[in-house]
Amino acid sequence: MLKKEIVVKTEKQFISLKSEINELIKDEMGMGIVNVFVAHTTCAIKVMEGEILLLSDVQDYLAKTWPKDGGYRHDMIGIRNVPINERINGFSHMRQLFFSSDANIPCQDGRMQLGQWQDVFLIEFDPARERKVIITYYS
Amino acid sequence: MLKKEIVVKTEKQFISLKSEINELIKDEMGMGIVNVFVAHTTCAIKVMEGEILLLSDVQDYLAKTWPKDGGYRHDMIGIRNVPINERINGFSHMRQLFFSSDANIPCQDGRMQLGQWQDVFLIEFDPARERKVIITYYS
Amino acid sequence: MLKKEIVVKTEKQFISLKSEINELIKDEMGMGIVNVFVAHTTCAIKVMEGEILLLSDVQDYLAKTWPKDGGYRHDMIGIRNVPINERINGFSHMRQLFFSSDANIPCQDGRMQLGQWQDVFLIEFDPARERKVIITYYS
Repeated sequence: MLKKEIVVKTEKQFISLKSEINELIKDEMGMGIVNVFVAHTTCAIKVMEGEILLLSDVQDYLAKTWPKDGGYRHDMIGIRNVPINERINGFSHMRQLFFSSDANIPCQDGRMQLGQWQDVFLIEFDPARERKVIITYYS
Repeated sequence: MLKKEIVVKTEKQFISLKSEINELIKDEMGMGIVNVFVAHTTCAIKVMEGEILLLSDVQDYLAKTWPKDGGYRHDMIGIRNVPINERINGFSHMRQLFFSSDANIPCQDGRMQLGQWQDVFLIEFDPARERKVIITYYS
Repeated sequence: MLKKEIVVKTEKQFISLKSEINELIKDEMGMGIVNVFVAHTTCAIKVMEGEILLLSDVQDYLAKTWPKDGGYRHDMIGIRNVPINERINGFSHMRQLFFSSDANIPCQDGRMQLGQWQDVFLIEFDPARERKVIITYYS
């Protein structure tokens, strides 16, 4: 197994991880699989196309389905056992549920076997933060 | 590979599997990945935060989006080739689709590399039943 | 590792991959995991029940939530850097987001450890096409 932990500053909502993954696996000949995992509850890993208008469609859908002011009980900070300045992000948690924390992609001869339009994204649902992503390759 | 099959009585809708997983992998030094899989079509495996008000938000969303009496054709027992007392659970199947049957989590030195707020849940969409979960560790 | 790449003509929307997977792994005794991955952005891999009325419920939900004429910006072909006859399929991309590109299933003695009602489907969101699915077994 090969592993790399990276910290990503999420200044964009959709961040391609392809070059980081390819860098890790580029010398691994033969068959393998790469597992990509994000260690946060308000981020996701998603294999999808990165066309910018599509990303705007996704953003629209998420904002309409789980608006920021959606009256989430998770945001009732006053009754929870957390600091009073706890982040108000029920919407981020709900949006994450639509996605997953991990993706698992077959590799061959140092490359992921992605289709022509596929990319691997870290999706951020909170404002920009530093996020840990763990990339593990096994063969 | 290490494997453990467990049977969980789902008396709660969200059941943390963290202690069962940690018990299996606790002596495994170095890098690994754990695959968690539920062998039922109306349950899911989800890496998420277990804060109770958030769980109520999730339950609200599922109940609103796929109500029990949603007129699912899967519930037209009378025209299907099943016993007349077949469980009426179209809503459970639809809610499961929102999630996944498996999660795959990197491990290091006997622990899952979960973030601070992440836990691994078995989610039950039917009433309480006995459910089989398969936990497989490889390194 | 064992790997098989197959090309599936998606004349149906939900296509069971069980026999293809079982054929690959049938001589593999002991423990293993199979990764199933589709190399296209408008297809998904999903472990679910294949009961036909349930499939109609799923189709209803997808059509209602992401209609073909949903006004997706991805479909504004005239402002994108693509041929003018580019496929209009914003709805297919949005429906795919609800699902995943991969599933990971534990195996034992040459068989996937699926539950009684579980099957592994390739789901097609576009009209019938030829699609590449990669099946990888490791133990």
